[in-house]
Amino acid sequence: MQSRYFTINDFPQGTPARELFELHEAELTTLAEGEVRIRNTWLSVDPYMRGRMSGVKTYIDPFVIGEPLEGAAVGEVIESRDTRLTVGDKVRHMAGWRDIAQLPGDQVEALPDIEVPEQTYLGVLGMPGMTAWTGLNRIAGMRDGDNVLVSAASGAVGSLAVQLAKARGGTVVGIAGAPEKLAWLESHGIQAVSYRGKDAQQLTEALQAVCPEGFDVYYENVGGVCLEAALNTLRVNGRIAVCGMIARYNAEGPMPGPSNLPMVLIKRLRMQGFIIFDHWSDYPRFLEEVGPKVANGEIDYAETVEEGLERTPDAFLALFAGTNTGKMLVRL
Amino acid sequence: MQSRYFTINDFPQGTPARELFELHEAELTTLAEGEVRIRNTWLSVDPYMRGRMSGVKTYIDPFVIGEPLEGAAVGEVIESRDTRLTVGDKVRHMAGWRDIAQLPGDQVEALPDIEVPEQTYLGVLGMPGMTAWTGLNRIAGMRDGDNVLVSAASGAVGSLAVQLAKARGGTVVGIAGAPEKLAWLESHGIQAVSYRGKDAQQLTEALQAVCPEGFDVYYENVGGVCLEAALNTLRVNGRIAVCGMIARYNAEGPMPGPSNLPMVLIKRLRMQGFIIFDHWSDYPRFLEEVGPKVANGEIDYAETVEEGLERTPDAFLALFAGTNTGKMLVRL
Repeated sequence: MQSRYFTINDFPQGTPARELFELHEAELTTLAEGEVRIRNTWLSVDPYMRGRMSGVKTYIDPFVIGEPLEGAAVGEVIESRDTRLTVGDKVRHMAGWRDIAQLPGDQVEALPDIEVPEQTYLGVLGMPGMTAWTGLNRIAGMRDGDNVLVSAASGAVGSLAVQLAKARGGTVVGIAGAPEKLAWLESHGIQAVSYRGKDAQQLTEALQAVCPEGFDVYYENVGGVCLEAALNTLRVNGRIAVCGMIARYNAEGPMPGPSNLPMVLIKRLRMQGFIIFDHWSDYPRFLEEVGPKVANGEIDYAETVEEGLERTPDAFLALFAGTNTGKMLVRL
Repeated sequence: MQSRYFTINDFPQGTPARELFELHEAELTTLAEGEVRIRNTWLSVDPYMRGRMSGVKTYIDPFVIGEPLEGAAVGEVIESRDTRLTVGDKVRHMAGWRDIAQLPGDQVEALPDIEVPEQTYLGVLGMPGMTAWTGLNRIAGMRDGDNVLVSAASGAVGSLAVQLAKARGGTVVGIAGAPEKLAWLESHGIQAVSYRGKDAQQLTEALQAVCPEGFDVYYENVGGVCLEAALNTLRVNGRIAVCGMIARYNAEGPMPGPSNLPMVLIKRLRMQGFIIFDHWSDYPRFLEEVGPKVANGEIDYAETVEEGLERTPDAFLALFAGTNTGKMLVRL
């Protein structure tokens, strides 16, 4: 059986070009003892993948030039030599960026038994959702009534973060760009503020206008002017959960940090970075809390879907153009 | 009775000039019920006072132009209408920058009964020492064996921080400038690294040379290239206690933050600012732990002393020129 998969042909500087990605096809080896073969139905593309294209080991190994790219995917088992998995099982695994995956069964997990669309396990009930929940609850120590600011608030992570925060009763403000993203936020009771055309001072003033008393928690996905405005508008003893800094991921050289970093001292702020893989043991607890609310519609989620394996690189690149609302997915 | 005291005549931009400070003399009012009169013997000058000269409320009210400046001082009660204090008592209070202080007795504390020179209650056993202890233990969560990096390591705060860290058994590296400061550090078993003439990359390499395995804790007093080099050399799950950023205190405009701030994410760092006044309830515990070690010589401290009230502004300004080793004091 053939598998079609994407590779990169270089470690790009700056924003990757579409030509970086190459589609290849190869015959799969005979299934070994313990392996399973999966027909992927949905692929995830995520901002963190840009870091794996740098050739540098950070918290995760870099992608290897010419080798299949990796990423979260869901699919259906079509052949199994692992006794725990049978043909027809719906599963999640990390052998994405391809149509047919073959890997050891112990790297594959069966999807939980909740009445939700399978692709939600790549989004609101997957790594992005778990990242939102962990950042607010485990890193920022969100409490009832906290005023919460979220950047990239309509993205895969941010769109759950704002809803989890809103349920705790404080003022929740989301920063986003495009009008449809702002509209999505407003329709969920979130104060939406556009970063477009604003420097840090203007963004600060816009945030102060909607939340004059300031924020207890900042959920950081972006960096740049968003971080600077957040430092200006956090209250004393505010907490920052640093999930990402997408503004820098395609930077060709060092970008200066916020000029108001001394606010960390003046306001006794706590800023903490985290990587979701370190917290995965909390996943069952997250799923128990958030899963039923997704199933009954109490928590909403948005998706932006590209159709067909060939469009995977385009879906990935769209993340940095900011054209997705909610989780960016590829349907095979 | 006359009191001589210093005022400022402006809110300075950049490095304050000597002419900012004016010495005045005024007749004290008759002692009111509950008040005490104190002949100050030692005055403290501290970097945080620069923030009170900005005209802006940060974590503490700004100084008032034309009014007596304030700061920690020790002295002897010479008149008392507070039943808890009697003439001859050695005390500490915040009515510094003057020779004779008069204030309510409930703003005055008697010095503890430990066999140490009285001025140590302005330094190693006072606010700076308490700041070192709190930053390492309460903010950074220092553990046995941690490798610890301290900037401004020969200063009033840093010189205790390095010794407290050293006692926990890991590698301790102190950043300082002048040769005599580096020598002081080396004589106490601390790896000393000069920041002079080094950019962030060169300082990073110098730190890596003396502590190749990296740091668990960074005690931040400086900002600038020190922070950038620390972000480069901290280990995964490292903690930064932000006590001060003296590099910026006299800046005339915003200074960009570190260009490698994404290290907070990549290395899952926790950076936390703190203000010692929030933690003062821990002072008895600090004193119980550190006091006996200062008394028996196990913990050393350095002092730089200016003589006479008139030299108080010069002592203060010397903090920013970096000419003091250990605690900067004025002896009256």
